[in-house]
Amino acid sequence: MSNPQLIYGLHAVQSLLKRHPDRVLELRLAERRDDPRMRAIEALALEQGTKVVRVDAQALHKALGEVTHQGVAAEVLPLEPWSEDDLVSALGDARAPLVLALDGVQDPHNLGACLRSADACGALAVVVPKDRAAHLSPVVRKVAAGAAESVPLVTVTNLVRTLKLLKEGDLWVTGADADADKTAAEVDFTGGTVLVMGAEGSGLRHLTRQTCDHMVRLPQLGSVESLNVSVAAGMLLYEAVRQRSKK
Amino acid sequence: MSNPQLIYGLHAVQSLLKRHPDRVLELRLAERRDDPRMRAIEALALEQGTKVVRVDAQALHKALGEVTHQGVAAEVLPLEPWSEDDLVSALGDARAPLVLALDGVQDPHNLGACLRSADACGALAVVVPKDRAAHLSPVVRKVAAGAAESVPLVTVTNLVRTLKLLKEGDLWVTGADADADKTAAEVDFTGGTVLVMGAEGSGLRHLTRQTCDHMVRLPQLGSVESLNVSVAAGMLLYEAVRQRSKK
Repeated sequence: MSNPQLIYGLHAVQSLLKRHPDRVLELRLAERRDDPRMRAIEALALEQGTKVVRVDAQALHKALGEVTHQGVAAEVLPLEPWSEDDLVSALGDARAPLVLALDGVQDPHNLGACLRSADACGALAVVVPKDRAAHLSPVVRKVAAGAAESVPLVTVTNLVRTLKLLKEGDLWVTGADADADKTAAEVDFTGGTVLVMGAEGSGLRHLTRQTCDHMVRLPQLGSVESLNVSVAAGMLLYEAVRQRSKK
Repeated sequence: MSNPQLIYGLHAVQSLLKRHPDRVLELRLAERRDDPRMRAIEALALEQGTKVVRVDAQALHKALGEVTHQGVAAEVLPLEPWSEDDLVSALGDARAPLVLALDGVQDPHNLGACLRSADACGALAVVVPKDRAAHLSPVVRKVAAGAAESVPLVTVTNLVRTLKLLKEGDLWVTGADADADKTAAEVDFTGGTVLVMGAEGSGLRHLTRQTCDHMVRLPQLGSVESLNVSVAAGMLLYEAVRQRSKK
């Protein structure tokens, strides 16, 4: 198991205390801050029997670096990675699950940013292949700004097999491709959905592409070859949320 | 003036030759590659009197690093930064101009990714304030993957004044804020539009916020405080393109 991680910010800490109280080891509050939201978080922690300590703001800054911690941090047990089995069994509990799969994304910054977007867009999990891909690391956790403690990362041996399992679980698989005929807005993402992003430049691998039910393109009006992969993933996740909130 | 920059990839180079032939100093083609798109690019360059050289693939790799250059690169004069006056006069020529403004984005990676998204989404320019913000640098150019040579960056002394000038030019100014009442899809981006992103954590400054016609929120379904600013900018730009292509 990895070391405890520090999560910060009013919203992030409150959300963790509500969703995963068992994973919060300690709540740290800045001594001189006192406002209604902070008091609500303190009350929630005390109610759950979580240890609450007051620290000075300097100590928070020192532990967290240059971030907007809003005077609140929590030491949490990191989220355990999911296996393919965990993912498949979680599908049963989710209504219209949204899953992000990254086919060969090797840059840890991109994986971190994708975890963060997946969290913001309510994705169930992020799936990556075991080989030739970025995995959880201190850099990824830092860039994910807490999302690595919130969205499970599923590392699988064979991404195509996992996509097929998800299809059997009634999810529709949509891949991103610059040359696709359809735009993202033309495909229905309101049901169970897997969004698959390829590596920058090379895109989806042949077999991954063949496994997709739909291929969609993203805006490509300019001079440059392709979008940053984490931005492209963010656009697709945004489109899924937009369609779902409309419904 | 900055040093010439190398732009690579079939689409990027072809687009630059078509749009800005005067800025292309030299076209470099990999010796052993020969396909219809490459021949079309070569013909275009020769027609325009641009110098064409054949180089071996190793030389391209050495000059560009680990990127998918597709055997094509062009040495181009960098895009000159725009002044506020350049921006205002460009508005007259554009139909429903789309402008991205970054209020205090300090990370060069985020600025580079924003330039890339702005390019893909057909934005006219990216506006940043002179102080407390990232500006064009080698890191930004690299992350922008050519977009810094394609989308003008406008550095302004007073962002609020520039936003007001853009409003006088019949653009509507929309700021992103986690607590906004409206979603991005609820605001009309089909007319002249300025999208304003604040710094991560602190968000838009008070005066910037007051200058906005609309405030919109982006997906925030998870545990983590906010999206990466370049992903959030990408989502808003995507929404603008979606609305415009629907129209």
